[in-house]
Formats: sequence, structure tokens, C-alpha cells
Amino acid sequence: MSKKRGIAAERELLHMLWQKGFAVARVAGSGSVPEPSCDLLAGNGQAKYAIECKMSGNGRKYITKEQVESFIEFSDKFGLKPLLAFKFLRKGWFFLSPESLNKTPKGYSISLDTAKERGVKLI
Amino acid sequence: MSKKRGIAAERELLHMLWQKGFAVARVAGSGSVPEPSCDLLAGNGQAKYAIECKMSGNGRKYITKEQVESFIEFSDKFGLKPLLAFKFLRKGWFFLSPESLNKTPKGYSISLDTAKERGVKLI
Repeated sequence: MSKKRGIAAERELLHMLWQKGFAVARVAGSGSVPEPSCDLLAGNGQAKYAIECKMSGNGRKYITKEQVESFIEFSDKFGLKPLLAFKFLRKGWFFLSPESLNKTPKGYSISLDTAKERGVKLI
Repeated sequence: MSKKRGIAAERELLHMLWQKGFAVARVAGSGSVPEPSCDLLAGNGQAKYAIECKMSGNGRKYITKEQVESFIEFSDKFGLKPLLAFKFLRKGWFFLSPESLNKTPKGYSISLDTAKERGVKLI
């Protein structure tokens, strides 16, 4: 996925979460800074999330072990709940806890069907 | 203050807070998005802060009523403690709660002496 499309997807999710009653911030330079990070941070006074966005094609989504570990490290250190946001083309966004992913030799993956089964609603 | 110097100051504070044991994220486009926002978000599992940075010259710092209100609105909605970070030249950073600022006709201000008196330590 191009950087531009990635940012557009993050912005789309940011606006969606504002409309759902969350205060949301997009992280500068996520993926390009040495420290662990995430793409968005969102909270509604009660629930507080660190969010990693994935939007790549229509099929099964993959995420490396390193990405997941760095993301969980950031979330735990800050004190936020880690949440993966996967966008499936024409199906919208699905929110999953890292534990809901399927293990692969190089990391983790999720199919649309599994995302539908295991996805959580944010409000 | 130029945008470039502002970003450099935010990055300096980001690294300082990582060294103090916080997970920190710099917000993309803060000050240029329509939604209320802040400059940094930081948490150490217990304390969780929204941080607005101010670094302009050496003397008294000013911040408009609108900036403070928008910042507090964001912090409250998210569920973070609002914290203002003022950098005084050759004196370093001072962290203040918005209630510690002095009221002016157009907003708020803080002098180095008052920042020294009322500033809080983060850990």
C-alpha cells in the first residue's frame, strides 16, 4: 500500500471515530520513527485505544510478528488497549484484538470471514 | 515560532519523555486540523497526558483562550490529563496544569518565575 493511501485510510478512520464520540489523534511519522508506535490514538473518557491500521487489497491481511510486538509494547507501556483496524474493500472496517489474529510462519493474518466472526464493535 | 522549530521542540520533548519511562506519540497536523487536538500524547501505564507544547522566546509565554479551551476539550473527551509544556530558553521544560496559568484579556500567560513555582514534575 502506498504511503498516501495509508494516510487517507487513517484519516477516514479518524473522522469515523470522531463521529462515534471519540477524541482521536493521528500519530506523526508512525512506521518511520525508531520508537514503537501506532497509527491512531482514540479515547471516549472510558475506553482508550492505541490503533494500528491495515488496509491492503481485498483478501487476507498479513501483519508481521515485529509489527504486532512493537504495537503491543507501545500500547502496554502507555496504558492503552491495543486494537487492530483492518479495512476490507467494500466491507468497511473491522476492529480486532491482537489475540484474535491467526498465527502464520512470519507473523499473523486475518481473513474477512474471521474478521466478521471475531471483530468487536467500538461503541 | 517557525513550524520547523516547533516540531524540533516537540521531538526534543518526545525523546525526553521516552527516557523518563513514558510511551509517547507526536500528533500529526496538530494546529492544522479542524478537530481539537494537542501536540503529544504520553502515558506510563498509570499517568496519561495530553500535552500542548509552547516554546517562544525567553520571556513570558502567552496562549490564547481558544487554544486552551480546544486543548482541554480534547483532553476531557479522550480521558487524558491536560498538561502544558513550556520551554524557557536555557531553563528547560516546565509542565503546568491549565489552572496554573494567569488570566490575561485575550487568554493566558505564564512567566518563568511562576512556572518555577507552579510547575509539576512528571515522575
